[in-house]
Amino acid sequence: MTLTRGTKLTVVGAGSVGSSLAYAALIRNSAREVVLYDIATAKVEAEVLDLAHGTPFAGPSSISGGSDIDLTADSDVVVITAGAKQQPGQTRLELAGVNVRILEAMLPQLVALSPNAVFILVTNPCDVLTAVAERITDLPKGRIFSSGTVLDSARLRWLVAEAAGVAPQSVHTLIVGEHGDTEFPLWSAATIGQTPLSAWTDADGTALFPRERLETLTHDVVNAAYKIIEGKGATNYAIGLSGARIVEAVLRDERSILPVSSVLHGYRGIDGVALSLPSIVGAGGVQRVLDVAFDAREEELLHHSAEALRRSIELFA
Amino acid sequence: MTLTRGTKLTVVGAGSVGSSLAYAALIRNSAREVVLYDIATAKVEAEVLDLAHGTPFAGPSSISGGSDIDLTADSDVVVITAGAKQQPGQTRLELAGVNVRILEAMLPQLVALSPNAVFILVTNPCDVLTAVAERITDLPKGRIFSSGTVLDSARLRWLVAEAAGVAPQSVHTLIVGEHGDTEFPLWSAATIGQTPLSAWTDADGTALFPRERLETLTHDVVNAAYKIIEGKGATNYAIGLSGARIVEAVLRDERSILPVSSVLHGYRGIDGVALSLPSIVGAGGVQRVLDVAFDAREEELLHHSAEALRRSIELFA
Amino acid sequence: MTLTRGTKLTVVGAGSVGSSLAYAALIRNSAREVVLYDIATAKVEAEVLDLAHGTPFAGPSSISGGSDIDLTADSDVVVITAGAKQQPGQTRLELAGVNVRILEAMLPQLVALSPNAVFILVTNPCDVLTAVAERITDLPKGRIFSSGTVLDSARLRWLVAEAAGVAPQSVHTLIVGEHGDTEFPLWSAATIGQTPLSAWTDADGTALFPRERLETLTHDVVNAAYKIIEGKGATNYAIGLSGARIVEAVLRDERSILPVSSVLHGYRGIDGVALSLPSIVGAGGVQRVLDVAFDAREEELLHHSAEALRRSIELFA
Amino acid sequence: MTLTRGTKLTVVGAGSVGSSLAYAALIRNSAREVVLYDIATAKVEAEVLDLAHGTPFAGPSSISGGSDIDLTADSDVVVITAGAKQQPGQTRLELAGVNVRILEAMLPQLVALSPNAVFILVTNPCDVLTAVAERITDLPKGRIFSSGTVLDSARLRWLVAEAAGVAPQSVHTLIVGEHGDTEFPLWSAATIGQTPLSAWTDADGTALFPRERLETLTHDVVNAAYKIIEGKGATNYAIGLSGARIVEAVLRDERSILPVSSVLHGYRGIDGVALSLPSIVGAGGVQRVLDVAFDAREEELLHHSAEALRRSIELFA
Repeated sequence: MTLTRGTKLTVVGAGSVGSSLAYAALIRNSAREVVLYDIATAKVEAEVLDLAHGTPFAGPSSISGGSDIDLTADSDVVVITAGAKQQPGQTRLELAGVNVRILEAMLPQLVALSPNAVFILVTNPCDVLTAVAERITDLPKGRIFSSGTVLDSARLRWLVAEAAGVAPQSVHTLIVGEHGDTEFPLWSAATIGQTPLSAWTDADGTALFPRERLETLTHDVVNAAYKIIEGKGATNYAIGLSGARIVEAVLRDERSILPVSSVLHGYRGIDGVALSLPSIVGAGGVQRVLDVAFDAREEELLHHSAEALRRSIELFA
Repeated sequence: MTLTRGTKLTVVGAGSVGSSLAYAALIRNSAREVVLYDIATAKVEAEVLDLAHGTPFAGPSSISGGSDIDLTADSDVVVITAGAKQQPGQTRLELAGVNVRILEAMLPQLVALSPNAVFILVTNPCDVLTAVAERITDLPKGRIFSSGTVLDSARLRWLVAEAAGVAPQSVHTLIVGEHGDTEFPLWSAATIGQTPLSAWTDADGTALFPRERLETLTHDVVNAAYKIIEGKGATNYAIGLSGARIVEAVLRDERSILPVSSVLHGYRGIDGVALSLPSIVGAGGVQRVLDVAFDAREEELLHHSAEALRRSIELFA
Repeated sequence: MTLTRGTKLTVVGAGSVGSSLAYAALIRNSAREVVLYDIATAKVEAEVLDLAHGTPFAGPSSISGGSDIDLTADSDVVVITAGAKQQPGQTRLELAGVNVRILEAMLPQLVALSPNAVFILVTNPCDVLTAVAERITDLPKGRIFSSGTVLDSARLRWLVAEAAGVAPQSVHTLIVGEHGDTEFPLWSAATIGQTPLSAWTDADGTALFPRERLETLTHDVVNAAYKIIEGKGATNYAIGLSGARIVEAVLRDERSILPVSSVLHGYRGIDGVALSLPSIVGAGGVQRVLDVAFDAREEELLHHSAEALRRSIELFA
Repeated sequence: MTLTRGTKLTVVGAGSVGSSLAYAALIRNSAREVVLYDIATAKVEAEVLDLAHGTPFAGPSSISGGSDIDLTADSDVVVITAGAKQQPGQTRLELAGVNVRILEAMLPQLVALSPNAVFILVTNPCDVLTAVAERITDLPKGRIFSSGTVLDSARLRWLVAEAAGVAPQSVHTLIVGEHGDTEFPLWSAATIGQTPLSAWTDADGTALFPRERLETLTHDVVNAAYKIIEGKGATNYAIGLSGARIVEAVLRDERSILPVSSVLHGYRGIDGVALSLPSIVGAGGVQRVLDVAFDAREEELLHHSAEALRRSIELFA
């Protein structure tokens, strides 16, 4: 048998996040075969049909799916978006209870059907779910992780790029920690091109990112989801693209550095908690969590974020 | 001034069709600058923010927008998706009244702000609106048209490709006429690769597309939208991709042949009615509506479709 | 082990065709891993280095290579471009002797190292080499074939598109038979969009492709290679893109219809000769050679082409 | 008139660099219309034909060209690759005399035909030619510049990525100064992801880039061109991709940060010399040369490079 069969991506959950992620994956040809799975039969079949009708305008990627979990068998990557979604005013951590139970019911079956797959959790609170997932499965290290602050970091890159008047692809900024209220930007390592953010000026030499600007940016990123939820009820497009991007890093064995969330073991004294740190993502999932430099304030924020997550996990473990 | 400023695409309407279209356009980099415009301020700002957060993972395309119509100024292409959407059980033609009034209120302002743009109508009933649009504007021939049966044709291509086991890109089938209940496939010209559909067999020589199969396929295409609406309340993904595809044909001056809908003047005796026929789409919009061969049955269906549309237009003109 | 390791493409031959093909494959991300192999060590290492330096601007595809044939092991697709190249004034068939001997020496080793690969012959005379290859290997049907008239058909599509003023992607024309002097266009099945070529007119109704125009076009395609060879010594760019395109159809299991050349067994009375016919190309190579309609003249040309190839093969078999 | 006509890129010089650049631009759809111009009629016509034959497999980009300079009129970007090429053993500066004279003869005509274009010099010694070009034309600041060390920086990114086992897109390293023997890496600002190169370790904690490794890497980059020239006579593929990349930054108004070479005016005391520094490249060319931090050694190397270039320019000005 040749390995030239296409790669297979399963997206679990046909809500707005899952279907947007499938849409982005089809347009970008992130995988040869995309399967959308959900227990709501009429909904998932309608989404699959709507997505399929667009495939003649995309590339070789195909879409199928339904409410039969066997359709997910032999996937190379499984992205889990299923779960209750964040309500206006609700914190990400408040979602945890119901989504932990959904995951506990579903994940063992998914792993049994796709024992070689990489599993990516997008459902919130994604850090808590990642820790739970590691507990209830027996997958090799790195094979299960969550989208973490990949989206939050993109939000920051976009904000900084707009402010500086450069392409977002030339902005290198990271949000680390919990994907939630205790997350924080790693300002000390932030650059535009290779210029430290703190040294970036506009054309006439005025510093563009003084301390108060950084605080506004941090606030804007942390509250972006709330603002979108108020206006349209949910976020889906940017998380869809973020998810497709991570899938590609795995399926193409890119070894790209992305701030995904995986369970830490002895990272700066943090153990058994999943939070986002720059990680090498490629075949097999998270190949390595990178040790980065933190200044004193950032180190404190990291431990604060880890502590918040530890308390959440204890509630559900 | 150089012409190297990016192309500007305005999407009018931040509902599920408009925002999916903007999402597809950003991922595909259909235009350098995408503007999403809607009168619902909180909704459109939330959609723009959600879309913008994904742009660091896409290419150079940027997104902005809001509820100020001046944001649309100097567009190269304006796609109109605004309007009431088709309800379960409702025919496309029943939508007409309210959407005609919306268009009459909005289009003159949009044309005044972007006098050189190509205007593409996606709102339904798109054929009726195209005829109305030509009446209330003074744009050169071909500068305003609708997405017509581009989506319906894609649906048919996907179905035929699935049945034949080939890439949808190798299937050349067309739905022409009204984007609605009287539309019909141009079976006599349908091919897979360069094999006429009627001559296509499976590997052991059995004809795969006998008359009754064609009837099933026709039925499936015409009813696809209803089925999706039942399952998810609306169609948005495939129409989003179809729209992005048409925009690209215009902005890149592709001169691709697409079944868009424009007002006919003396086409096989049809006058003043817009319906979909294979057309050369490039700079300036519809450059030419192609005369294609119809067999006797297809010719009859074309006039039937034209007649249905004429009756609709008369109600609103 | 997951299947998420990237696909591996080996290009044999670091001449202008092989390196252009590798370049196109890297830019298009046709495969995750591209290996360039040639016995000329300094040449192949220089090409690999030059190609590698461009990869930061392309996607996840990587390039390596050298003169050690073991580098080709476990490929998913092996494209063979190695061989003497066509000289000014030389026919493609005159190349055969030397290239048959090169293939006989090299192919068994390549097959032993990549027993599950699909093998695509680009070296000329590609039809003759395909027949020889089938004789000296024991690969399943369809796993070895040549690029055939994929390039010639593209040349015709470009010429017709220029004449008609439409996108080449909207032109569906095929050259079939020998990749060489006896090849011929399948005019009876040629269409622009879904309009038969014979019915295509310019905007004022004048037929654009009368018989004499078709003869000029045929002549231009058959002689295109000679004209390019006179001007620059060799053809490499279009064949490079054609090769990358075929590789993608295989690695992505596209089931695209392409006029590649494989050994026929009882096709309209033709046996044991390889020539180009529209074929479904996907995982495993040629999945099916399609039976197409030929008019009387085309049927005669097909047998003429088959006869010319049979005589060539007999010289080398 | 709408602005939806495609963008026009002229590539001057149909040698291996120019034709590879056109090939990359067609495959990537860097511009809607690519024109290849050269005084050698048979050569340029053959290259155009070979490139055109591949366009049905690429996107909407088209190619034309020849030896009539009027074909270049109204370009949006003109890339100049024409000139004598570097011989084995020859330094880049030794090329200068003949290429300065070619540029002086050709540039005024090109500017007259495309007065609004951005001009990008790829011909070597590109820094010297940039300074000469600014002297003999009257273009606004930033409208003429050279590809500089964009290629050299890509070489370094590839080497570092290979060593670290990460995607080259995650490596942020720069070569600045002369595109030639005095160029140097800006090690103090080099990062992988957001980790300083000096802090990067392998998985078990060993520093991967100690001082001696950096020296080897510097040596390898500076000598890469010589090595390739020995093995294949010229470099063309990576410079072709680099050129296409820069063109896209201009035509899409990306405002990407790229180390192109433009004439400096009062940059850390350097005046009237062109050398490569990170610059914002978008509509209109170089929008801004960025002030970056240099450590003491790098500051010295910058002035050394500027001094070498000043001596060269004086010979030809």
